[in-house]
Amino acid sequence: MPGFELTDIPTAEIDRAEAEIQPLVDTLREVVDATIRTCVGADQLQLAQQELESALARLQADQFDGPAGVKFNSEGRSWNWGNTVVGQRNAMAPPLRITHVRPGLAHAKADLGAVYEGPPGLVHGGVTALLLDHLMGETASAGHTRVTLTGTLSLRYVKGARLGPVRLDAHIDREDGRKVYVLARLSDAEGVCTEADGVFIVPRWFAESQ
Amino acid sequence: MPGFELTDIPTAEIDRAEAEIQPLVDTLREVVDATIRTCVGADQLQLAQQELESALARLQADQFDGPAGVKFNSEGRSWNWGNTVVGQRNAMAPPLRITHVRPGLAHAKADLGAVYEGPPGLVHGGVTALLLDHLMGETASAGHTRVTLTGTLSLRYVKGARLGPVRLDAHIDREDGRKVYVLARLSDAEGVCTEADGVFIVPRWFAESQ
Repeated sequence: MPGFELTDIPTAEIDRAEAEIQPLVDTLREVVDATIRTCVGADQLQLAQQELESALARLQADQFDGPAGVKFNSEGRSWNWGNTVVGQRNAMAPPLRITHVRPGLAHAKADLGAVYEGPPGLVHGGVTALLLDHLMGETASAGHTRVTLTGTLSLRYVKGARLGPVRLDAHIDREDGRKVYVLARLSDAEGVCTEADGVFIVPRWFAESQ
Repeated sequence: MPGFELTDIPTAEIDRAEAEIQPLVDTLREVVDATIRTCVGADQLQLAQQELESALARLQADQFDGPAGVKFNSEGRSWNWGNTVVGQRNAMAPPLRITHVRPGLAHAKADLGAVYEGPPGLVHGGVTALLLDHLMGETASAGHTRVTLTGTLSLRYVKGARLGPVRLDAHIDREDGRKVYVLARLSDAEGVCTEADGVFIVPRWFAESQ
């Protein structure tokens, strides 16, 4: 499987590694937010910068090359630490918290702060697309039982989504061979903001391996 | 204009403020990347975490409430520091470097690292949507001479984009009243990965103010 890498690391070890780095990721997410919203002077910015440089040197002292990829072990545990939307180590990920109700039906929540702004006070339209694409792909994967890639994605923006808590809903509408048709929407506290439909493709290499 | 805020801060002062914080933003972007890719032990993670906590406290000592919004001054200089794709203070922004060739024709470049991963080694399909949406919106704005919001966005994923340098191209295909039709694509070193078309809307409040 191209890039989906089977490793022999036990689930307990992955859980421990994730727990160890979680506080760092949480704080980093706050630093990203604070860097947008800070009003402190040049001297404090410089001192903060030096502290970040020091942390950076520590983290880079030993690191793997390239992106994190998608790994899984023989127990069926998978991890994609760098994923932009749900990666456990990715401070850019809100993260989106996904609930798979059953294969083909999922919903998700996120709390979107200053980092996700497009028009003033509103979620960037492209962030809406990013989150919907991800949830729809996971929904198409029928509870992670198959690999799917985005084929087409169409979005209708009904109204701007306010920054703050958002909810996403997605379900498989129908399937046709390797094509999975998914419908979804993103809502803020005041109702539906964006509706989406997409076609997700089960790659031939995956379909033929089943 | 809702949220688009006229201020009397001179351009030179904005330029200076941006130059002051730029090194911090650059380092922060590296820390986000390194947090995904680090292999150091729990003791080093904890020390890095303490350094980030210290930087966070400095930055939060004085900050404004809520998101950064979109500001402009009477000289026509505008700044949207929190914007997810181009915000000068947003470490999540790649950033996308946009060239407006002329009103209605633009291209852009970004170098996408481990932070933007979806499938192993590939750009997250939602990140492709995020970047295209942004460039298409700026293109629809005809060189920032009007406000536009995303109406609809349709994406066709031809092939996965490799992480690394990407190029985006967008142009206005036609206009009809307050609707602006934009075509665009995203390419990696090996060719076109995603094609997009979108309808961007000039809000009634803006059209009526002209």
